[in-house]
Amino acid sequence: MYDQLKGFRDFYPGEQSARREVTDTIEAAAKRYGFREVATPALERTQMYTDKSGEGIVEELYSFTDQGGRDVALTPELTPTVARMVVAKGQELSKPIKWVSTRPFWRYEQVQQGRFREFYQTNIDVFGSAEPEADAEVLAVAADALTSLGLTGDDFEFRVSHRDVLGGLVRALAADPDAVDTADAIRAVDKRAKIDEAEYLTLLEEAGLDRTTAREFDDLIVGVDGVDDLDAVAEAGGEDVEAAVENLRAVLAAADDFGAGEYCDVSLTTARGLDYYTGVVFECFDSTGEVSRSVFGGGRYDDLIESFGGQPTPAVGVAPGHATLKLLCQRAGVWPDETLETDYYVLSVGDTRAEAARIARDLRALGHVVEADLADRGFGGQLGYADSINAETTVIVGEQDLANDEVTIKEMASGDQTTAPVAEFPPEAGRPTYDDYA
Amino acid sequence: MYDQLKGFRDFYPGEQSARREVTDTIEAAAKRYGFREVATPALERTQMYTDKSGEGIVEELYSFTDQGGRDVALTPELTPTVARMVVAKGQELSKPIKWVSTRPFWRYEQVQQGRFREFYQTNIDVFGSAEPEADAEVLAVAADALTSLGLTGDDFEFRVSHRDVLGGLVRALAADPDAVDTADAIRAVDKRAKIDEAEYLTLLEEAGLDRTTAREFDDLIVGVDGVDDLDAVAEAGGEDVEAAVENLRAVLAAADDFGAGEYCDVSLTTARGLDYYTGVVFECFDSTGEVSRSVFGGGRYDDLIESFGGQPTPAVGVAPGHATLKLLCQRAGVWPDETLETDYYVLSVGDTRAEAARIARDLRALGHVVEADLADRGFGGQLGYADSINAETTVIVGEQDLANDEVTIKEMASGDQTTAPVAEFPPEAGRPTYDDYA
Repeated sequence: MYDQLKGFRDFYPGEQSARREVTDTIEAAAKRYGFREVATPALERTQMYTDKSGEGIVEELYSFTDQGGRDVALTPELTPTVARMVVAKGQELSKPIKWVSTRPFWRYEQVQQGRFREFYQTNIDVFGSAEPEADAEVLAVAADALTSLGLTGDDFEFRVSHRDVLGGLVRALAADPDAVDTADAIRAVDKRAKIDEAEYLTLLEEAGLDRTTAREFDDLIVGVDGVDDLDAVAEAGGEDVEAAVENLRAVLAAADDFGAGEYCDVSLTTARGLDYYTGVVFECFDSTGEVSRSVFGGGRYDDLIESFGGQPTPAVGVAPGHATLKLLCQRAGVWPDETLETDYYVLSVGDTRAEAARIARDLRALGHVVEADLADRGFGGQLGYADSINAETTVIVGEQDLANDEVTIKEMASGDQTTAPVAEFPPEAGRPTYDDYA
Repeated sequence: MYDQLKGFRDFYPGEQSARREVTDTIEAAAKRYGFREVATPALERTQMYTDKSGEGIVEELYSFTDQGGRDVALTPELTPTVARMVVAKGQELSKPIKWVSTRPFWRYEQVQQGRFREFYQTNIDVFGSAEPEADAEVLAVAADALTSLGLTGDDFEFRVSHRDVLGGLVRALAADPDAVDTADAIRAVDKRAKIDEAEYLTLLEEAGLDRTTAREFDDLIVGVDGVDDLDAVAEAGGEDVEAAVENLRAVLAAADDFGAGEYCDVSLTTARGLDYYTGVVFECFDSTGEVSRSVFGGGRYDDLIESFGGQPTPAVGVAPGHATLKLLCQRAGVWPDETLETDYYVLSVGDTRAEAARIARDLRALGHVVEADLADRGFGGQLGYADSINAETTVIVGEQDLANDEVTIKEMASGDQTTAPVAEFPPEAGRPTYDDYA
């Protein structure tokens, strides 16, 4: 009768248990590095987004006027919200601030494979350090999360770039550096893989590079296929680019120490789309190319907190998006099994509910997942239900069993069954199965 | 610069770690009973709420028209959404369906203690069983969640009522049963404790009871202070009420078997405000009365799925609200500690980053929470940071230590320190501390 909204998803138990396992794994990795969970509102003032990105952003937002006349928007990303939170607490928080949170976000956009209007991300951010170790820790925690999911260096790669290398290079090459719009040029690089060459060169021209210089710029960034190739770029770019190259090298060296070096490739054709990025940026890709889109990305945004009215506070973060990550995990064969699991079904037949309930309670007190009859079913109906929830063991509590001071222990996979003394079932610890009594 | 919206909250790490612990405890209790997690959208069509509750409900909703012209609303509760999901899968789902989910919901209402515009609930529902065991399991899982949080029978009570007892009684007592609006009468009972007597009696009159009958009705429901008192009600109410009383008794008997009986009191002045409830309803209260409002509630809603276009599917559920639950836990002294905890800080001084990083990685591989320097601080600065994150142990990796093939293990609480051989630190398992090396 009522339909779901386009781009919004219902997650039923099988799929959700896999999603929960993936989320828990990512968050556990972040927590091992000392990232602390925060929780944030689903609504913010629309102005927080339009101030940064212009009124045009409203088209991509779920924005409206609330009953109190406030212009509000469903949060399209976490970064502005956590920036607001850092500003609100001022000097009260000890630095570096390390936060993690998993949440849905909302954008009104074209729905396609791996892209929805309601989408989930785990955001991992460090505030208050401009050092290369902060960038490297963000790379390390992302790599740790992915390898904890079962992915390997054959499955994914981080393409690491630097906005100031790109921007500095554009200004150094331009006939008139003052006429160049660096942000526009970087946006052109971000679109490079998604558009054809002519369109790409036109975007660079519009950013202030003539056609020949645009090609020269592109040849330079495409030519970088490793740390050693950065020398040529530094040489072509001059002082600012040299400093940025040095910072990029320092981040990669720290990432090596932190165990993430093997997943990192230098790639100056990586740029990231959002304007607030300032230094090192990176994107995670499927190494096989089967998932053709960027899986997720991250980078530095050193100016955002100050632009929100806070003290100058450098920041760097990463935000694995769960929909594209699922595509990568499925491609690599590590997406968790979606079948339901149940440790015990306690089957009660005849006037045995009190004893069956006692056994269910005792098994739950041992931490097990235990279901029992809620639907007044007979023996066969209950056994069918136990089967439908993949119960590993069914404990049958019949009147005859109890008359013999026993319960029946049935292994569901084999159908084998035996008996156990009811007074000693379940034992005080462990996970009793057919094998313990056979 | 940007402010938070009224009734919306930012949760910083200390408070959030406590909230997470409480959420995990409630969900773990539900999972032990075989409730499976689902995840649901934040937006639904507004019509899903107005169809049931009339256009008036829009005042309480965050509703708007999206860019595609759809009238949508931020979900004010979970029940209609899960009803929609049950209908969508039809006969595909094996019954009973047992779902749990924790999420924020949104209502535009007056902000007060324990009530916010964005509020979190854990919804626990059973679909597909009309048996008393289903109601009783919902009571049992709620009790299990609360006792798992450290609350006891001295802290909380479930006031259990029955909508058909109340409705049947109103019709039985009324001079003209056809002139009675049962739903209005039940809503009056729900408001009883929040309004004065005259106002209450007026509401009952407006529902179709004359003043004398209204008083008679109230005397009857107030007079019930235990299961035994239900006889008088059944007698006054006739056949329909007798059947409802029998159902209520059966639910309480099953709750006894399921270990929840000690938390249940019969209370016919409990009614629940939402119109979709049909049978047993209950509310959880602070036994000391210090938290004066209902902490949360639940009950049967046997007609909702069918009214959504599905097969007749009885249902019963409960939804602990986290804001009022926090008030109860704080009153009872069981709200979790909000301080941050960190297992290790690995302090690197001099040119030791690679070895310090190796130690941090190995400690994380053992599952511990480990931080290291990201801010290029000196010895004192790092030790101060380790203190600010409540590190239990600081592992000092200095050049002199490494020259001696050692690291220094410092117990932060006492300040005591000793050394450990760097080649064997950390060991392959466990949680090495000062005591292991002193």
